[in-house]
Amino acid sequence: MQSGTTKKAWSGVFSVLPTPFDGSGALDLDSLARVIELYLRAGVDGLVVLGVTSEAARLNDAERAQVIERAVAAVGRRVPLVVGASADGVRRAIEYCRTARDAGAAAVLVSPPRLARPSADAVVGFYAALADAVDLPLVVQDYPPVCGFTMEPALLVRVAQQVGNVAAIKLEDPPTPWKIARIRELGGPQTPAILGGLGGVYLLEELEAGASGTMTGFAYPEILVRVVRLWRDGQREEAAAWFYRTVPLMRFEFQEGIGIALRKEILRRRGALREATIRPPGLRPDASTLASLERLLGWLRQQGGVEWSWD
Amino acid sequence: MQSGTTKKAWSGVFSVLPTPFDGSGALDLDSLARVIELYLRAGVDGLVVLGVTSEAARLNDAERAQVIERAVAAVGRRVPLVVGASADGVRRAIEYCRTARDAGAAAVLVSPPRLARPSADAVVGFYAALADAVDLPLVVQDYPPVCGFTMEPALLVRVAQQVGNVAAIKLEDPPTPWKIARIRELGGPQTPAILGGLGGVYLLEELEAGASGTMTGFAYPEILVRVVRLWRDGQREEAAAWFYRTVPLMRFEFQEGIGIALRKEILRRRGALREATIRPPGLRPDASTLASLERLLGWLRQQGGVEWSWD
Amino acid sequence: MQSGTTKKAWSGVFSVLPTPFDGSGALDLDSLARVIELYLRAGVDGLVVLGVTSEAARLNDAERAQVIERAVAAVGRRVPLVVGASADGVRRAIEYCRTARDAGAAAVLVSPPRLARPSADAVVGFYAALADAVDLPLVVQDYPPVCGFTMEPALLVRVAQQVGNVAAIKLEDPPTPWKIARIRELGGPQTPAILGGLGGVYLLEELEAGASGTMTGFAYPEILVRVVRLWRDGQREEAAAWFYRTVPLMRFEFQEGIGIALRKEILRRRGALREATIRPPGLRPDASTLASLERLLGWLRQQGGVEWSWD
Amino acid sequence: MQSGTTKKAWSGVFSVLPTPFDGSGALDLDSLARVIELYLRAGVDGLVVLGVTSEAARLNDAERAQVIERAVAAVGRRVPLVVGASADGVRRAIEYCRTARDAGAAAVLVSPPRLARPSADAVVGFYAALADAVDLPLVVQDYPPVCGFTMEPALLVRVAQQVGNVAAIKLEDPPTPWKIARIRELGGPQTPAILGGLGGVYLLEELEAGASGTMTGFAYPEILVRVVRLWRDGQREEAAAWFYRTVPLMRFEFQEGIGIALRKEILRRRGALREATIRPPGLRPDASTLASLERLLGWLRQQGGVEWSWD
Repeated sequence: MQSGTTKKAWSGVFSVLPTPFDGSGALDLDSLARVIELYLRAGVDGLVVLGVTSEAARLNDAERAQVIERAVAAVGRRVPLVVGASADGVRRAIEYCRTARDAGAAAVLVSPPRLARPSADAVVGFYAALADAVDLPLVVQDYPPVCGFTMEPALLVRVAQQVGNVAAIKLEDPPTPWKIARIRELGGPQTPAILGGLGGVYLLEELEAGASGTMTGFAYPEILVRVVRLWRDGQREEAAAWFYRTVPLMRFEFQEGIGIALRKEILRRRGALREATIRPPGLRPDASTLASLERLLGWLRQQGGVEWSWD
Repeated sequence: MQSGTTKKAWSGVFSVLPTPFDGSGALDLDSLARVIELYLRAGVDGLVVLGVTSEAARLNDAERAQVIERAVAAVGRRVPLVVGASADGVRRAIEYCRTARDAGAAAVLVSPPRLARPSADAVVGFYAALADAVDLPLVVQDYPPVCGFTMEPALLVRVAQQVGNVAAIKLEDPPTPWKIARIRELGGPQTPAILGGLGGVYLLEELEAGASGTMTGFAYPEILVRVVRLWRDGQREEAAAWFYRTVPLMRFEFQEGIGIALRKEILRRRGALREATIRPPGLRPDASTLASLERLLGWLRQQGGVEWSWD
Repeated sequence: MQSGTTKKAWSGVFSVLPTPFDGSGALDLDSLARVIELYLRAGVDGLVVLGVTSEAARLNDAERAQVIERAVAAVGRRVPLVVGASADGVRRAIEYCRTARDAGAAAVLVSPPRLARPSADAVVGFYAALADAVDLPLVVQDYPPVCGFTMEPALLVRVAQQVGNVAAIKLEDPPTPWKIARIRELGGPQTPAILGGLGGVYLLEELEAGASGTMTGFAYPEILVRVVRLWRDGQREEAAAWFYRTVPLMRFEFQEGIGIALRKEILRRRGALREATIRPPGLRPDASTLASLERLLGWLRQQGGVEWSWD
Repeated sequence: MQSGTTKKAWSGVFSVLPTPFDGSGALDLDSLARVIELYLRAGVDGLVVLGVTSEAARLNDAERAQVIERAVAAVGRRVPLVVGASADGVRRAIEYCRTARDAGAAAVLVSPPRLARPSADAVVGFYAALADAVDLPLVVQDYPPVCGFTMEPALLVRVAQQVGNVAAIKLEDPPTPWKIARIRELGGPQTPAILGGLGGVYLLEELEAGASGTMTGFAYPEILVRVVRLWRDGQREEAAAWFYRTVPLMRFEFQEGIGIALRKEILRRRGALREATIRPPGLRPDASTLASLERLLGWLRQQGGVEWSWD
């Protein structure tokens, strides 16, 4: 099995999309199409559905299929569409991967499942089983809350070396810049593309450490796109200045327990989502938090470059 | 909404059934029917499908529905059938409860979901939302690994008092006997039925503390049934003696990480399961563990009362 | 017992100090005195020693006493000195509180210990036991990693109401602004002072939600002091603008696993610490991280207001 | 550095002793001497002070030293005395090891500390640093709650191979029999002695898997000693029968959250401890639990071989 992808293909901003719901909590696929349009106009290099912050764990199997189908149609191969396929067992992960492949996904994003006794061999074996079962590029998701343990840099390198179709490693385990540097040190020139995460809060430092981009959710993708493009073009001071000016917003959105709701609220205000509904249980932004958001966005607009609307 | 159940109805042994798979990992519903027959002949007071030890998290939605349908048919109202309905979000938990009710389940077993910020109000609100949505008796599952936090005795009492259809509380948070005594102290005469768990390893002590029975998995349900019946009949010394003689087996089966596989292996040897397959990832019993099992069962047969076959 | 403190006294910036070590890992008390001077010149309203980020868990009892003694002498009552006194058991926490009181501390900062079975009563009982044993203002530390559970807003309010000497609540459980608003809602006008944390990363939003200040570590305390003073003086736009411009640095320093080492490195460069040594185990900043730090500090200096030296 | 110990020396029952307190919670060293005598008369092969179940985390440094000093004197080299030396940092662990060595301990028992980013290299490096600093046999403690992560079998083997003075590996990570078999498989003939744990609840199965004994707390050490001696002498059926008859007691004592208090209560009744006091916070056995204990001990006395008194 071959990954069929180059490192170049896994470079840039891959935005993890929220799953839109209407006021009753039902799927709102038209809003999904609009969100996709917003992100594509922002110039992102790829899109991800059914990630952790897409509230994927709160969808049933039929809803998952609907999201994939609509996203594939809306994206129309303008950029690669990655589908989250983490699951509680190997068999369901394979099912999710197959559903994604059959629907036309470009790749899957998968964390190891919870293991009765975690071990390096068990993790490599898990990814090898996926690769044997489904011929699709694989993004290894390093996010301890999903699997209950930390994959050390040496293990991520080993997975990439021993499993044929690893296209990229996507990190959420802080400090991500430090971990990126360690993986690259150990992996040498064959290291696959490494993508940062954490809501873009450390995007500049991840690039400085050798990331080829980021795979994360954030309601102003044009900000992340501009950082990465300036960086890639060698305009590093400009990239840094733009990042430092805008990172107060990434930081604000990336609040544990409330981040997804804030992201949806911003996307609603930008006109992409009809409703900012999240499926319960979940905190909703309170009056104080919404006032903080407005103050911050007001300041950013004064600085230039952050607009409410997107069309 | 009313629970429509009495405390008496929630007394005795409620066995959590494994989900049988064939050698390829596919559902084996004929084995499920045989397992149900084994447990019914053992005299259990109720059955549970899709619990944590049923590998429910490794089933897709269609498989869940198949398991419920076949179990309802096989049980044929001879005892109450409880369906596990814990889920990552409120909406999916409600969906699971409705599927269970529509298929003819007698009750649902539900843990709170992971909460962004756990609070007593959020837990009560969760169960109240279930009760509003689905008119079915509810067994509150107290199992911290599912929801990520511990429900203290006062909270369990509050849930039982404020949510109309709580039929029973099922405990897995050790020490269960101590917790049962605290709940009864706080709840007074209105305390709902409390069922122990933990593989039956503390069944006697749970009864001594005031449990009305147990809801757990174990491959020799006749052992648990005999303990509870002797206890109920006031033959407490006999109940204790029988429990102490047999608890080495409950203890052995209840090994973290390997318990479900051992349970299936025993049920295979007893003729109920065609295969002992568990869905990966999961430890399988090694040669040493299987030798230990045989030694223990040999000793128990010598003591009388534990037989391989069940028909 | 009375707290002997007003809410006003618990307002502003309370800086948690690192514990300096020399190259061999031994205590460097002269550097501690210099660090204290740096923070006092920055205008902080209070100082904290032996907090979590002070590496307190890596000090033996004799070293703890030395740190307190030197800090008391160096501060000389110019501001209140708070001493961290969280411990594994009630008895040791009381010992730590008494040591702090006898040495002249103004208050103690205490998290509940790990509890065999967490409950609201057990938490209130813990703080009541401290209050009975030691007559000193108490800052309640809400930091789940220390005690293993989350104190919900209603519990923090109950502790403050039922335990006589609670002077302030210090939060580390995100989202802190949301939690501050909930505590104030529930606690009404009697709510004690609430101090934010998290390295200052949400300082502005904490103030917007009603915090009276922050208690946290950060190597540029003058930044936090300026935010709080502008805010207090009603210059909220100026406070916000200054915060947004400088928060990239708070965010950078506050990297999990590497934050304390970065803080010490900055304080070394500022001339306060002779060495940036942390006691192992602990990650050290790698070349990429140090390069990121320099780029960020360079940009901040260009913006004005962040200087290397402090005297 | 050499371990100076043979595998034979690390065989049998190593009992982890509770730390006795008087009614006020102060150290009761006379009771410690009596407990040591009880265990020695029971025929144990070694003793351990300052383990996790010794409430070591609730002792201050001076108390730790007093416990070691008195234990060394009371044991008088009749068996090896092992001292628990796990700590939050490398430096304190080394200090604890040196204190133990200087006082005359035969070995130290050490878990890795919490690591900012766990990795195999960091664990090996930790034990190597201990070995470089202190020339004393080392028992590697595999107890995830102390260090926050699981050491997989391959890592334990690597530690034993690369660190000179590893005398034994002591397991607490269930299923211990399965893990013992894996370590022996990977480690081959050079595998160091492996000791089980978990309160003796799986002692027989641990021996069947290749353990050379156990290192654990339990208030009836004569029971464990008899199991191990019969096993060693090749009387395996007798060992098993004795174990199966008595394991209901190991199981009962080994209740999470209440086990240490139960152990002390039994040792008080046996005349070794003046008081059963544990240092708060901690659950105390309630009336129901004490009634359960009496029923169980009554039954065991009827079966023969378990006596209240020990002299």
